[in-house]
Amino acid sequence: MKQIALLGGTGSIGLQTVEVIKEHPEEFNLLAFAFGENVDKALPIIEQLKPSYIVVKNRAIKEKLGNRISYNGKINYGIEALNEIVSLSKVDIVVNAVLGSVGLEPTLEAIRANKQIAFANKETLVTAGHLVMKEAKANQVNLLPVDSEHAAIHQCLKGENLKEVNRIILTASGGSFRDRTREELVGVTKYDALKHPNWSMGSKITIDSATMMNKGLEVIEAYWLFGVPYDGIQVIMHNESVIHSMVEFVDRSVMAQLGTPDMRIPIQYALTYPDRFNYHLSDALDLVQIGQLNFREMSFERFPCLRMAYEAGKAGGSLPTVLNAANEEAVSLFLQDHIKFLDIEKLIENELEKHSVIKNPDLETILSIDAEIRDSVKRTGLKR
Amino acid sequence: MKQIALLGGTGSIGLQTVEVIKEHPEEFNLLAFAFGENVDKALPIIEQLKPSYIVVKNRAIKEKLGNRISYNGKINYGIEALNEIVSLSKVDIVVNAVLGSVGLEPTLEAIRANKQIAFANKETLVTAGHLVMKEAKANQVNLLPVDSEHAAIHQCLKGENLKEVNRIILTASGGSFRDRTREELVGVTKYDALKHPNWSMGSKITIDSATMMNKGLEVIEAYWLFGVPYDGIQVIMHNESVIHSMVEFVDRSVMAQLGTPDMRIPIQYALTYPDRFNYHLSDALDLVQIGQLNFREMSFERFPCLRMAYEAGKAGGSLPTVLNAANEEAVSLFLQDHIKFLDIEKLIENELEKHSVIKNPDLETILSIDAEIRDSVKRTGLKR
Repeated sequence: MKQIALLGGTGSIGLQTVEVIKEHPEEFNLLAFAFGENVDKALPIIEQLKPSYIVVKNRAIKEKLGNRISYNGKINYGIEALNEIVSLSKVDIVVNAVLGSVGLEPTLEAIRANKQIAFANKETLVTAGHLVMKEAKANQVNLLPVDSEHAAIHQCLKGENLKEVNRIILTASGGSFRDRTREELVGVTKYDALKHPNWSMGSKITIDSATMMNKGLEVIEAYWLFGVPYDGIQVIMHNESVIHSMVEFVDRSVMAQLGTPDMRIPIQYALTYPDRFNYHLSDALDLVQIGQLNFREMSFERFPCLRMAYEAGKAGGSLPTVLNAANEEAVSLFLQDHIKFLDIEKLIENELEKHSVIKNPDLETILSIDAEIRDSVKRTGLKR
Repeated sequence: MKQIALLGGTGSIGLQTVEVIKEHPEEFNLLAFAFGENVDKALPIIEQLKPSYIVVKNRAIKEKLGNRISYNGKINYGIEALNEIVSLSKVDIVVNAVLGSVGLEPTLEAIRANKQIAFANKETLVTAGHLVMKEAKANQVNLLPVDSEHAAIHQCLKGENLKEVNRIILTASGGSFRDRTREELVGVTKYDALKHPNWSMGSKITIDSATMMNKGLEVIEAYWLFGVPYDGIQVIMHNESVIHSMVEFVDRSVMAQLGTPDMRIPIQYALTYPDRFNYHLSDALDLVQIGQLNFREMSFERFPCLRMAYEAGKAGGSLPTVLNAANEEAVSLFLQDHIKFLDIEKLIENELEKHSVIKNPDLETILSIDAEIRDSVKRTGLKR
């Protein structure tokens, strides 16, 4: 029985992780459960799976939840409590499904505690990949990607030699606006942007898909996870999201992982690795029924967020932190109707241009740049 | 430096193996070279690579060749000489690119001599899979498939657990007549049949592709190589031959291997395994340029040879031997203009229906059934 600590339990990945855990009650136990504020979503999970440890955002949520749970689970709050549950000696796997760079510290804690980590928090790798990977290497910890693209690459690399990789090919569905020109993006609403053609995901990542920043963050994530240089990471458009990503080797052989667009499959893969368990929550992939897979070139002109992500990744240092913080804040402003869709990329580019890159920033520097950029984007954004 | 014994050196796979060997002169040496009768094709290879051992079909060819080679290579002939070169202690890899079930005995010899075998002789596995695999298991010998489909599956299974395989999905281009109805097959010529849409291959396998028997033989080959039951082996139509084959696992994850239709890539893979070497003989796969991959259902009504192969495989015993011998002979008659295209399947079905299955046949029984069926097909075919 594997003991699981789930961080970000009421987000989209968190809820789907719970479904996978429930599918295999003989294999998994939800020992610790952390979420932010959504007590209504958390309560049925907590009541059913009765985690021994619960962590919430703050004291108010702790009290609200404490009044409603029926058993004697330990409720705590704040970042220190989060760091505590990922280090519990009983925990085998930490699922980091926290949204945004707030997942950085618990990730570092979990690595130091030598836990297997199912990793769905790409912002953490974007903002501080050098710190996370250094720590992972030193502690020989496996970061098991939950993102469908990176889970695909992880599977394509099984039994292979990283030195024989020629190119990673990330596929992009194109998001909700893939068939629109840039001119047709003027005046689009968040309701339009939230209609992803293939995947059911949280709102932040769905907006990131529409701007293509999601793919940009994935490029940086792939750089850190697999150690392939940016020139060896290519993005192509693939409307159907059936091929989740590919790896081309030096002998021109290309390995690909395919599947239905169901995040629970890569989640389960990360939980069961190196084994594969039966999966019955969705149908098998049927290529005959799908009939056709399409591929198109990716355009940096159409999707400047992707271009900015490559530039920030290649520049390195503190620039990816700026990229990520600016994006998180800009998307948040868009979702609150404070700015327009096309303002997202402008706010990010503005911050990237202003920033003087700091090489090899430490954790403190990263956290302070992160806060500073968020402030700046908020101020600039609210003036618009 | 790996020492190679190449059997079937002037066939399509043999010639392409020579190209791969020439590409990596620092890695491979052609120590032994066997071919049938085609002295004109063999001579330039022999003169360039100067194999120490040469085996040909018979004494006449030996003399013809002996008069023409410029160095002191040892020339021998016949099946015993073939068995001898695959067992040479210096040989590291045996490439079995012999056409047809004549490859059976040298395969068994090479296995007993504990050689790594690059295996391009599917007829041998079809006709006597139980004997070959038993010997391979007993000697812990790796059969490395050269067929693009099986090389694909081999790569999809890298680092995986065979017990977690749910289904093997073989792709079929459909061959030269894929867009014709059965009615439109009446009166087609061998010149029509030899125009394969994607692959450049020998004439026997190109006809087998047009009848879909090639895919049937591959189903049986996959059954033996990977130990997956026939109900777990599916064939789908895929016009572009870009996805060479796939494996679906119990968690619904599907791994696929992709590439340009270039047999030299799987040949090189089998020679360099477990490593991958650089490959420069053809361009990298460009999915954006290809644009679209298509998939359709396979029909047993349209392609009765595939149905017969499944039936023979499932029945087992001596029936696959009958299937293969009848097919080899019928294709040969068609290529010599003695029978029509649609006669091929009739001749095979006729033999399958007449045959009383012998369970677990030994080598002698297989060789005698093989000869008997060939005779029978020839007699029946020539009467038409």
